[in-house]
Amino acid sequence: MALVVVPARFVPGVFQDLADIGTKGAVVITSGFSEAGEEGKKLIEDIKKIADGHTRFIGPNCMGVTSSEAKLSALMIPFLHDSGEVAFISQSGGYGLQLYIRASAMGVGVGKFVSSGNESDLKGWNYLEYFGQDDDTKIITMYIEGLKNGRKWYEAAKEVTKKKPIVAIKVGVTAEGSKAAASHTGSIAGSDKVYDAAFRQAGVIRAYDSAEMFDYVKGLLYSPLPQGKNIAIVSNSGGVAVETADRLIQNGLKVPTFSEEAQAEIQELIPGFGNAKNPVDLTATLNMNSFLNVPDIVLKQPEIHGMITISLGTSIIKTMFPDVADEDLTGMYTWINNTLLSTYKKYDKPVIVIDPSADVAGESAKILEAARVPVYTTPERAADVMGVLYRRKLYLDKVNA
Amino acid sequence: MALVVVPARFVPGVFQDLADIGTKGAVVITSGFSEAGEEGKKLIEDIKKIADGHTRFIGPNCMGVTSSEAKLSALMIPFLHDSGEVAFISQSGGYGLQLYIRASAMGVGVGKFVSSGNESDLKGWNYLEYFGQDDDTKIITMYIEGLKNGRKWYEAAKEVTKKKPIVAIKVGVTAEGSKAAASHTGSIAGSDKVYDAAFRQAGVIRAYDSAEMFDYVKGLLYSPLPQGKNIAIVSNSGGVAVETADRLIQNGLKVPTFSEEAQAEIQELIPGFGNAKNPVDLTATLNMNSFLNVPDIVLKQPEIHGMITISLGTSIIKTMFPDVADEDLTGMYTWINNTLLSTYKKYDKPVIVIDPSADVAGESAKILEAARVPVYTTPERAADVMGVLYRRKLYLDKVNA
Repeated sequence: MALVVVPARFVPGVFQDLADIGTKGAVVITSGFSEAGEEGKKLIEDIKKIADGHTRFIGPNCMGVTSSEAKLSALMIPFLHDSGEVAFISQSGGYGLQLYIRASAMGVGVGKFVSSGNESDLKGWNYLEYFGQDDDTKIITMYIEGLKNGRKWYEAAKEVTKKKPIVAIKVGVTAEGSKAAASHTGSIAGSDKVYDAAFRQAGVIRAYDSAEMFDYVKGLLYSPLPQGKNIAIVSNSGGVAVETADRLIQNGLKVPTFSEEAQAEIQELIPGFGNAKNPVDLTATLNMNSFLNVPDIVLKQPEIHGMITISLGTSIIKTMFPDVADEDLTGMYTWINNTLLSTYKKYDKPVIVIDPSADVAGESAKILEAARVPVYTTPERAADVMGVLYRRKLYLDKVNA
Repeated sequence: MALVVVPARFVPGVFQDLADIGTKGAVVITSGFSEAGEEGKKLIEDIKKIADGHTRFIGPNCMGVTSSEAKLSALMIPFLHDSGEVAFISQSGGYGLQLYIRASAMGVGVGKFVSSGNESDLKGWNYLEYFGQDDDTKIITMYIEGLKNGRKWYEAAKEVTKKKPIVAIKVGVTAEGSKAAASHTGSIAGSDKVYDAAFRQAGVIRAYDSAEMFDYVKGLLYSPLPQGKNIAIVSNSGGVAVETADRLIQNGLKVPTFSEEAQAEIQELIPGFGNAKNPVDLTATLNMNSFLNVPDIVLKQPEIHGMITISLGTSIIKTMFPDVADEDLTGMYTWINNTLLSTYKKYDKPVIVIDPSADVAGESAKILEAARVPVYTTPERAADVMGVLYRRKLYLDKVNA
């Protein structure tokens, strides 16, 4: 594989050399082609003629490519995830790279990253087909400015989503945004509604911002799918319960009242002014017995298919015990989370955790995520992810029927 | 002031004692009143008769109240912000408290926090009126499950928003969510559309999730308002530019092409394949000269009213220089950010920064925020905040006309 970083006007010469020695693949980092006017467009046509299918290439106008498995970081900036089950195909180079780095800090391993640039030769659908049959890739993510061959992409996506989820963000939804995309990678953004319909029909999960995309990935990667639409909410605050219930309903899920037996069992563990019906309100008394034991009662109910619960995160634990030394606090939330984890892992049901301070005091959240329980800052995001998991289950039922 | 934490059945007796000794104010933490059936409803009626306007009270069924100025933390969990220009009125106790703690970790000072609980005596609009005339309070935030007297709240809000912003989140937007709210604080959630219209007419800024609310607060607190709708975007990635432009347009703002002169000045600092028109694409070459000097050219344009720009955050700097020691990296992003800050502060225009890793590697972002430049993780949130600032400017123009 050749990594081409010479100025645009020299790239045809390089491709002639590659053709002569029979190099089968190249990554063209160089910019200044179809995004840069007539001269650039002519240059890339020349290159395509020389390459003529013998030297397939990524780019041009891209940041490069990585493979953790191959220990390859052919990027403008040296960076490589240790390993990872996620593949990320990004038409945005600079921002794609930032998201690749962010995913690593989030603890989401991106084993293969392609900054696809102008896609003058290899296109989104080629990468989709490749990652679709790559056993190490469990989820494919895409940052799309505009598709080069929408029909081929759609056909590829439709096949791949039967085997593994594709989560995609499509930018350039307004005329102005599209204009910026055109000047950037020479893509035509196309009607946003067309993308929306195509994504839905192909079973592609659409994210509407870049934080959302990797939040969805985290849920899909870590969590089993709910086998039905009945979700339990266990919270120490009515507010969280209301926000979560609202958003679950908007996602087509249900928050059904528990059986009389389950309610009685929960009621024994919570104060009289709590709520045992679903959502469960453990109340703000922060009783450890209820906090540690109610989740098991909830998850063992056969008619319940998943649970969203709030964490006693780092911030709240520190606040409860202002005089306790930091290392003892660490011990405390390690113990709490490990106890809960043993419950969460007993059942093959999705458990999604809300920790309102996860983004500003993340120590407690990190323990859960290291054990592959997804944690989000807001009730809304937690409920949206449950919705994503449920719609994935429905989609798989449909295509497997 | 009395802090009442005895079981519900003893609270009427306590209020009798308070009446006897002439105590003017109380905070009733105790639960078990209108949210807990007929018996509780009778109890609170008894209390109201005894208090009869002489002993005004917060709650019941609340977490308490704080004032940083008075060094008072009358909360179930001891916590107090050092100081702060934000007042926070929350009908959710437990979650309100978590958000209060989160705001502190975010660096947003909440000087006064009221967990208003069932609002059997003092209601949302009483607090609004109080904080409206409190000189130490610059912004009021509200977490609303349901309003007790919508008309009075609306009238109070309409007056207050002429002087200072109110940012509110309204939960319980679905029937199920409302049901959970009713069992929680005895509130009736009401039609979401009615709230939406009332908020808009009263000039109240509505947030749709709890992270959004304090993100809006950060923008309103730190940033001047844009004096018009023309926003510049300076990015090192086309993807960020596209996402930001999309969302600014959806917020009713514009991303106008710069004058020929400005474009020429910018073009001198960026590569030929960059974009000097607006959005500016500095390109991924990460040239420090362009990164540090283009913002000044952009901000000095009289027709430009604000700027959204991407940060070389901690993650990207660490990645660029993998062999540099941590303390030297810290020196580097301190220097970069301080240089940029001197530009941002030269103009009375809003500058909003995107740092895609701010939530997972926040050191660089903290430098900007300490100097009161708001930083967000996604282009979408940055653009939404610019929209909030612009609509606040339009609202003030209208009420001052």
